[in-house]
Amino acid sequence: VNYADRLEESVRRCGNACLVGLDPHLDLIPEEFPAARDPAASRGERAAAVGDFLCAVVELVAGRVPAVKPQSAFFEALGADGAVQWERVVRTARESGLLVIGDVKRGDIGSTAAAYATAFLEGLSPAGDGSRCDAITVNPFLGTDSVRPFLETCARTGTGIYVLVRTSNPSSAEFQAQGHPTLSERVADAVARWGDQPELVGRCGLSSVGAVVGATHAAELARLRQRMPRTPFLLPGYGAQGAGAGDVAVGFLAGGRGALVNASRSVLFAYRQSPGEHWQDASITAVDRMAREINAALAARA
Amino acid sequence: VNYADRLEESVRRCGNACLVGLDPHLDLIPEEFPAARDPAASRGERAAAVGDFLCAVVELVAGRVPAVKPQSAFFEALGADGAVQWERVVRTARESGLLVIGDVKRGDIGSTAAAYATAFLEGLSPAGDGSRCDAITVNPFLGTDSVRPFLETCARTGTGIYVLVRTSNPSSAEFQAQGHPTLSERVADAVARWGDQPELVGRCGLSSVGAVVGATHAAELARLRQRMPRTPFLLPGYGAQGAGAGDVAVGFLAGGRGALVNASRSVLFAYRQSPGEHWQDASITAVDRMAREINAALAARA
Repeated sequence: VNYADRLEESVRRCGNACLVGLDPHLDLIPEEFPAARDPAASRGERAAAVGDFLCAVVELVAGRVPAVKPQSAFFEALGADGAVQWERVVRTARESGLLVIGDVKRGDIGSTAAAYATAFLEGLSPAGDGSRCDAITVNPFLGTDSVRPFLETCARTGTGIYVLVRTSNPSSAEFQAQGHPTLSERVADAVARWGDQPELVGRCGLSSVGAVVGATHAAELARLRQRMPRTPFLLPGYGAQGAGAGDVAVGFLAGGRGALVNASRSVLFAYRQSPGEHWQDASITAVDRMAREINAALAARA
Repeated sequence: VNYADRLEESVRRCGNACLVGLDPHLDLIPEEFPAARDPAASRGERAAAVGDFLCAVVELVAGRVPAVKPQSAFFEALGADGAVQWERVVRTARESGLLVIGDVKRGDIGSTAAAYATAFLEGLSPAGDGSRCDAITVNPFLGTDSVRPFLETCARTGTGIYVLVRTSNPSSAEFQAQGHPTLSERVADAVARWGDQPELVGRCGLSSVGAVVGATHAAELARLRQRMPRTPFLLPGYGAQGAGAGDVAVGFLAGGRGALVNASRSVLFAYRQSPGEHWQDASITAVDRMAREINAALAARA
């Protein structure tokens, strides 16, 4: 089944477009998982504690939000032990009915990109598929031939990609906003073209080729939305990075369709803002508040 | 010790600037390692065979070339089993006296980039350092704040980075050659600036912040060399991708300094062009020929 259709169905079922980012900063993990923070623990013990925490988060948000986004860097910092936990967390999330968007930002020349597509979207054998993602983020710096292997894999396996178009970080304008058209605009046009092939477009009318566009640049977000009318957006920047619900609403299509809004730390580590509250209660409160705020902004815009 | 100084010393000692890329395409691995190609073998068995092959390659080229460049994608395609072999290959290469440049092309926002720097250049604890790289490749799409955590780690740990400036693949012009100045030129200027801080410049006068510039674009390579006068270059494109020794020579500084020339398949899988010869003999012949050709081109240019 096409990724865009699976995504639409999952958003519809949950009644919100919240994407919970799984960025396990070791120092921020609740004390209930003491090995994660403990420099005296072995790497395997620390990694297992990270996995325990994230599986508990997955259990908490399953059925409540459509998707989670594990960030590979934090797993890779734990080496081979982290890779074991990556597979465990991805498998647990998929088994819980969540879509998994692997935030890996890979990008390389053709045959190497094909290996990354195998790594994250397909697996070497059907037996390995349970730990593969439904979609991943991709870096477009190397151009079309670096993206094509992902497109082929997406068409064959019903998975998706989100291409970095305009990121949410402070330096993002340094290269991305330069030139006429800007680099982001060129990439946006390529994303629309890449996603246009019939094998990648779902019955819902959206493509399985998405775009990452920071909600911290509201005017650009609106212009980029026009250039990519049937592209699913992944919107970082909400909450901690400064974008509000009104800012992210600009990235949606009519009817509140076609976008996911990411929140990582503000959900995962909500307990840090809420002394005395158990981390699970704080996270649930944060994710429910986020869903309510975004739905209200979308309703106000309709 | 500063990475640029370690690199210079290693090139001087070996008498050549060859970089052997470790890209273990499963289907090309010699039959002496049958599990690598065998879809009926377990993933762990396939990964172990890949590791066995690459450790044999490392043993073969140690002392002969200054550095190797494992490509993470092919390890990641083997999941957590591949991650174990990545650490094994990196550790074996470093223990053999080879510099290890991890070809990981990572790039992400600040706190995530810091996790990648931990993953590949530093490790969580001194005990893990043996499986960390001397340098890695980095994707600059997100701008300065995504590179800064790597710079800090490099300065602290005597490691290096190679930033993608102009890649060797056919589509690389699509974004990289657009604008005035072009994206590649903007990145080149940033690379020169990032590498200019005193903590990153070695006694040899070169920086630990390098650039990846494809040797398949000889005219651009010469211009980019002028923009980055004390930047170590990593030059892909030699051999299989079409660049000759004369093309890569343009990327060097006077005296044949300041660049490494990568060859992956043409060394690793040389046996496929040389029926009847053992894979090790074919690889040695290929690497020696490459060293001779490049040294001759550098001598002709001097």
